[in-house]
Amino acid sequence: MGIKLGANRYGKAETRVVVVRRHPDRHEVKDLNVSVALSGDMADAHISGDNSKVLPTDTQKNTVFVFARKYGIGEIEEFAIILAKHFVDSQLSVYQARVAIDEYAWDRIVLPGDGAVHSFSRSGTAAVRTAVVHYDGTKAHVVSGIKDLILINSTGSEFWGFLTDELTTLKETHDRILSTVVTAGWRHTDNTADPHRTDWASSFREASHHLLAAFADTHSYSLQQTLYAMGTRVLDRRPELCEVRLELPNKHHFAVDLTPFGLDNSNEVFIAADRPYGLMEGSVLRDDAPDAGQAWS
Amino acid sequence: MGIKLGANRYGKAETRVVVVRRHPDRHEVKDLNVSVALSGDMADAHISGDNSKVLPTDTQKNTVFVFARKYGIGEIEEFAIILAKHFVDSQLSVYQARVAIDEYAWDRIVLPGDGAVHSFSRSGTAAVRTAVVHYDGTKAHVVSGIKDLILINSTGSEFWGFLTDELTTLKETHDRILSTVVTAGWRHTDNTADPHRTDWASSFREASHHLLAAFADTHSYSLQQTLYAMGTRVLDRRPELCEVRLELPNKHHFAVDLTPFGLDNSNEVFIAADRPYGLMEGSVLRDDAPDAGQAWS
Amino acid sequence: MGIKLGANRYGKAETRVVVVRRHPDRHEVKDLNVSVALSGDMADAHISGDNSKVLPTDTQKNTVFVFARKYGIGEIEEFAIILAKHFVDSQLSVYQARVAIDEYAWDRIVLPGDGAVHSFSRSGTAAVRTAVVHYDGTKAHVVSGIKDLILINSTGSEFWGFLTDELTTLKETHDRILSTVVTAGWRHTDNTADPHRTDWASSFREASHHLLAAFADTHSYSLQQTLYAMGTRVLDRRPELCEVRLELPNKHHFAVDLTPFGLDNSNEVFIAADRPYGLMEGSVLRDDAPDAGQAWS
Amino acid sequence: MGIKLGANRYGKAETRVVVVRRHPDRHEVKDLNVSVALSGDMADAHISGDNSKVLPTDTQKNTVFVFARKYGIGEIEEFAIILAKHFVDSQLSVYQARVAIDEYAWDRIVLPGDGAVHSFSRSGTAAVRTAVVHYDGTKAHVVSGIKDLILINSTGSEFWGFLTDELTTLKETHDRILSTVVTAGWRHTDNTADPHRTDWASSFREASHHLLAAFADTHSYSLQQTLYAMGTRVLDRRPELCEVRLELPNKHHFAVDLTPFGLDNSNEVFIAADRPYGLMEGSVLRDDAPDAGQAWS
Repeated sequence: MGIKLGANRYGKAETRVVVVRRHPDRHEVKDLNVSVALSGDMADAHISGDNSKVLPTDTQKNTVFVFARKYGIGEIEEFAIILAKHFVDSQLSVYQARVAIDEYAWDRIVLPGDGAVHSFSRSGTAAVRTAVVHYDGTKAHVVSGIKDLILINSTGSEFWGFLTDELTTLKETHDRILSTVVTAGWRHTDNTADPHRTDWASSFREASHHLLAAFADTHSYSLQQTLYAMGTRVLDRRPELCEVRLELPNKHHFAVDLTPFGLDNSNEVFIAADRPYGLMEGSVLRDDAPDAGQAWS
Repeated sequence: MGIKLGANRYGKAETRVVVVRRHPDRHEVKDLNVSVALSGDMADAHISGDNSKVLPTDTQKNTVFVFARKYGIGEIEEFAIILAKHFVDSQLSVYQARVAIDEYAWDRIVLPGDGAVHSFSRSGTAAVRTAVVHYDGTKAHVVSGIKDLILINSTGSEFWGFLTDELTTLKETHDRILSTVVTAGWRHTDNTADPHRTDWASSFREASHHLLAAFADTHSYSLQQTLYAMGTRVLDRRPELCEVRLELPNKHHFAVDLTPFGLDNSNEVFIAADRPYGLMEGSVLRDDAPDAGQAWS
Repeated sequence: MGIKLGANRYGKAETRVVVVRRHPDRHEVKDLNVSVALSGDMADAHISGDNSKVLPTDTQKNTVFVFARKYGIGEIEEFAIILAKHFVDSQLSVYQARVAIDEYAWDRIVLPGDGAVHSFSRSGTAAVRTAVVHYDGTKAHVVSGIKDLILINSTGSEFWGFLTDELTTLKETHDRILSTVVTAGWRHTDNTADPHRTDWASSFREASHHLLAAFADTHSYSLQQTLYAMGTRVLDRRPELCEVRLELPNKHHFAVDLTPFGLDNSNEVFIAADRPYGLMEGSVLRDDAPDAGQAWS
Repeated sequence: MGIKLGANRYGKAETRVVVVRRHPDRHEVKDLNVSVALSGDMADAHISGDNSKVLPTDTQKNTVFVFARKYGIGEIEEFAIILAKHFVDSQLSVYQARVAIDEYAWDRIVLPGDGAVHSFSRSGTAAVRTAVVHYDGTKAHVVSGIKDLILINSTGSEFWGFLTDELTTLKETHDRILSTVVTAGWRHTDNTADPHRTDWASSFREASHHLLAAFADTHSYSLQQTLYAMGTRVLDRRPELCEVRLELPNKHHFAVDLTPFGLDNSNEVFIAADRPYGLMEGSVLRDDAPDAGQAWS
């Protein structure tokens, strides 16, 4: 019986590249966190310490900066595809590349007149935009997404009729706060490796809008139901997408019992709890969605 | 030679109270983190374990919820004054109360038509609004403020002509990125303990606007200069304030050297560094500012 | 073309349960963070808002506390199996349970004489012990592990002979610091659902010792090689295990260039960098390891 | 009425310097986080953007590395004094320097035989050792300390006989868990600027031992009482110290009510809560302690 190397990958994580586009009349800022992971013919490196097939993670970092300068940074999906193709197509020992990018949004500071030309504050509502690309020499799986998006419904949420056992003490409720922090990804059906094949900007803008709208529009009987509604709405409206995966913590807000003080509390005063919290994870997808391959790994 | 008790205070920190104002046609959400600290005749508790002058921190927490229900939560300065007065005025053993409140802002989700009536996403640009009140039975010092406000100027910042010694290697620069995360407090001149004495909402809105505007409008020769300009502008425009204190980390963005790759980089591609960072702290105040007492402690 | 529900699970995350074992002469403390995730016949909950097959996450939390009281908490693998079996075996709609537990270690405070009987400080070196159990009604996959284990070798690490391209600028090195934060899991071959089938305590103690020993004993030509050596050593010495997965960030320590100051630096003074960092992920397994099923998900 | 600059300081924060002492038979690692803040004749920099009296923070960083190489790093108090003196004594415009250092401890990895010679794991129990030095050209105030030290007493803690008002609902308890995360500083009486004037290592070792011992030995009627006992014990045993300041959060552990399930719970099963938490802050000092000056700022 022997011991062998299983699946593995390596790369430079969290290269923080900021690009200023210096237009004559105003600046734009692109602010990214880029993580690269490569896999391929890496057994020697692990087993015998022979690094001759290992492209250093330092080189991967250099590549991020050089490509930012040479090609600029457009949409993050595009930049991720360009980077992933480079590593696989230029190195025999690299069979697959995963490039994951987080983008932090900046809002132009509002001033009387035209607004600031080179001054920005970090956006909040837009949360963090994400993209993960897997490229294997032929196909480029793209998952776009969003994270750290904090939402609350102050009503329009119920939870009752649930399964009970002898340890169940939860009361049914027909009105509660529903609050979550969205982590969502949506998979693009098209796998061709052309970085310009999709209008990534409008796809992201629309998909994230529909997530928000479904959260707001759904009268909820559970966070699972809200999750499914969010995924369904995105797929309904965006034909270029085939699957949505959501991770939704249920950030509990408990109505405070004020009866010891002779006061009622008709869902006005809540305590926001940290832990424990519910956690809902789910996928919503088309009947004919192509195989996901490594897209979500 | 003896050992004695020095300055001390105690209280319940970080009570997370969320209040929903249920208007007929729409909801509003107030989302606060309230920390109370009391001091006074507490020697026995420390020295002999006699708790008869100690109002439990649990009671302080109850008080936050009960007052939220009874009086509602208006502006955080007002709520902090009401709480601080309660503890000092109702308990002989409590000589001074400090109430610090952080407020998290929520934006109404934008939908086609009128916008969501009870759905919100956490704001970013507004950062976290803060208030710290010290009440001693007579006066109520109020410091309003903001924190976690992330700013960047993509140009308009220089740093040269500085002092050098034999360990100085820094190059002078006439164009750099200037980025910071603002923690700021501004002290109100009026110390009377009336919770309604000031239009807290407009005072906050204007003061924080002027901080942003000064950051954007100042052609900067150092972050110290920007700090002073921010403080000065707030005091210039807001007569109700007498002192501004700022804590501004200099979040370094270094232009990447691309010459090894035959490329120039005219301040377009930067790496955002984590540590170390510069840290500027400073106070700007009026000549005739009254004594701050415990306001900043 | 329709839209359907894909893989999903839900549960109560991060229930923080602390158990005091009150022996006559001394106390012991078990300090856990328990996360439960259930899956099964949950389509109705997602699609129509019918919760009749959903055991509330609140009940899952209650179960953690009640089982802690009824059965005590022995080794975390055992407690996880008992919980996982309960949910699947008692509810028709639950087909699979995942129970993940983090354990925080406490050291008895050392005093002159016998040591404290009920006073403890949080351990560091032991890091956080982890266990993840998947139970499907028949088999119980168990992955034990460790996380937040911070290690450094001050020498005995090289990196040279690597692949280069036109963007490579990294210098070869024959002596560097190697530092990482270990996240590791090791899979037990036996899948039977008996909570007492293994001596979990000694298995954990030995496996984590061998991880540390391999890190210390390996003269490293790359972090990949160290990763493989760590996995191999654990499998070599622990016949009950069939696979080790490791996630090892390369926390770079750069020797500071002191030549501008007329000083050499023969690997004595380093700057510890935050980002970017290398990231190595890999699996080491036996030739005849059984199928992992959902064990790692 | 004019506007003026108030108190200010600036410097390089969080320079992460790691020093390897390469002895023939074994290595030692010193791992520090150094923050420098300077103040003095800095009005021009703030008001007119004239930087001629500003020593760049980059130079401060260089100085940390160069001094680490030239003088080595002994005890952190010593290294902080040497740095602080350098900045004030070498620059006319710098009147005062504050140098704050955190030290992360590393344990030698235990192997069969003699133990590893160059392999270490990050210590936990020792928490983070701290030192803050203020030097003004004449005196060097030194505050040594510790932070992130997590402690628990599983019994030996009561809380009853407290003040009540109409909002008090807390039950008295004669047995509870007491848990905290210690942040403590202790001020050295001697202010002379000689870096070698004290045996810093044994002073730290003993002071932190007595903190732990007092926590373990005190039968507690409140966390305030434990705080006072901790401070008193350190001063009783360490004549070189004149004041101890402590910040002790009360990390609540609530016994879970299991009566709905027909079970008792005699203080065996607890839930560890995150927020809110109690927070006790206090100073214990000698009658004849010299003036603290800026020591704690």
